[in-house]
Amino acid sequence: MNEDERALSSQIASIIGEECGDDCAIIPPPSGEFVISTDMLHETTDFPKGMTNWQIGWMSAAVTISDLAAMGSTPRYLLLAIGTDNPDRVMDIVRGAHDCCTRYGVRYIGGDLDAHTECTIVSTGIGEVACGSAVRRSGARIGDRIGIVGIPGRAEAGLLGCCEFLQYLLEPKPLVAEGQALLHAGATAMMDISDGLMISLLDLAKASSICCTIDLDLIPQVSGASLPEKQCRDLAWYGGGDFGLLFTIPPSHIDNIAKKDINEVFFIGEICTGEGVVSSCGDQIHIRGYSHFSS
Amino acid sequence: MNEDERALSSQIASIIGEECGDDCAIIPPPSGEFVISTDMLHETTDFPKGMTNWQIGWMSAAVTISDLAAMGSTPRYLLLAIGTDNPDRVMDIVRGAHDCCTRYGVRYIGGDLDAHTECTIVSTGIGEVACGSAVRRSGARIGDRIGIVGIPGRAEAGLLGCCEFLQYLLEPKPLVAEGQALLHAGATAMMDISDGLMISLLDLAKASSICCTIDLDLIPQVSGASLPEKQCRDLAWYGGGDFGLLFTIPPSHIDNIAKKDINEVFFIGEICTGEGVVSSCGDQIHIRGYSHFSS
Repeated sequence: MNEDERALSSQIASIIGEECGDDCAIIPPPSGEFVISTDMLHETTDFPKGMTNWQIGWMSAAVTISDLAAMGSTPRYLLLAIGTDNPDRVMDIVRGAHDCCTRYGVRYIGGDLDAHTECTIVSTGIGEVACGSAVRRSGARIGDRIGIVGIPGRAEAGLLGCCEFLQYLLEPKPLVAEGQALLHAGATAMMDISDGLMISLLDLAKASSICCTIDLDLIPQVSGASLPEKQCRDLAWYGGGDFGLLFTIPPSHIDNIAKKDINEVFFIGEICTGEGVVSSCGDQIHIRGYSHFSS
Repeated sequence: MNEDERALSSQIASIIGEECGDDCAIIPPPSGEFVISTDMLHETTDFPKGMTNWQIGWMSAAVTISDLAAMGSTPRYLLLAIGTDNPDRVMDIVRGAHDCCTRYGVRYIGGDLDAHTECTIVSTGIGEVACGSAVRRSGARIGDRIGIVGIPGRAEAGLLGCCEFLQYLLEPKPLVAEGQALLHAGATAMMDISDGLMISLLDLAKASSICCTIDLDLIPQVSGASLPEKQCRDLAWYGGGDFGLLFTIPPSHIDNIAKKDINEVFFIGEICTGEGVVSSCGDQIHIRGYSHFSS
């Protein structure tokens, strides 16, 4: 870190209200255990054209807070490593990340600054859960119902130019309260669907060594988008960038979800023996890979 | 993460021996408290030409483990976000980082993979210390002696082509045992000197609101380097990339250090009232900024 970076670091400290002076930030022990996640984002593939620096900061924090939410944890701390071509961008990026942290009760405790030809940000988040209670991908059991929170495809609809969905693309909202509510409702497995719904179902099927059987008609689709029907279906199946949650829950616990008052919950299928993702007619569903915003 | 990245992620899991399947890694509560640090490194400024992928991985882990060492902590966990232009590089980078983690008793618990035009790696490390015992930069007190561990300038001498110092540049060794020993010996302040000795002294002076008075003749210099004397002095004062430690300790505790059997300890000055860094003749010392390997 050179002198200019040191000056910037002092300005950052004044925004986030932390000292940032030491080699490390210090965090007190949790009452339960910690979960931790790190995510790399960069300009060409992750920050759509026209995105403001504030939005870049918000998204960088949100993507990691979403990972913490998907374990059912309470997000606690965030670090941000910022590499940028232009130091004038840093403060707005920091403000965006700090505003996102504040919104979700997270302490932005430090990070790193670097000069980089392409704006590149790595956020690392730490959340807290009661020992042994984090909801993993591997917990789905035969007979569990498969649910999602949120309508998949909205972020990519925004990318395709549907203005009414731009907020989902540019200022995504991690489902923190929803993740915690699903943990307490008795969810057996959970993950976010930021890579797309179908590939997330496949990830969950592999992790739990089961088959996800999906009633395709039950998958909600973006409405009001000025797009052909087939494209709306593709957005719902494969669209990335949404911060929805995918979860499984035993039928006996489904009533708990209604009591938790979670918005936009959709049940789309059931966990069966086997592997992969199939339709309720028994057809294998084609899974398309998702590579950020370029596919 | 697309399908290729998922396949790579599985290979990584087989090397590091962790599942990597969830949105987050889970870490049990510490017996004390945690310290955490994140560092961004990238090809053009941090990885000298000719560095192997294994060495890139080693250095990426080592730079963060050094930050954990500088707080006197026991390094515990590491996450690595790897962005690379060529997926064939990933496994050797992972092996290098994993070998470094294994050497220092650290669990490499996960990370992120990304395609990036320039190889960019962000490592995040977590260490553990007894509550309230982390050695910060702000703890130096009037009358404390100023010490360093390691001979500063060796990494940059390697960069200048002195082959005998190449190992300090390419495979730096974080001073983990030394950091812990200094904590237990009663060090009042500590940091690593990877940005260079003089700028680190200035950082410590600012953080502790004191003046570092340095006996310039006591600063050790690289020997055996085929470089002019003036350049050897500059390397010692300003050279970056070394993983030595800078610390302060009350005179009454200095004998503890001898008992800890730490190699290459040099006492170079004393903490006084005032600010900045001055020679023992009272001259203000010019502090030159350090910007990775480019300055």
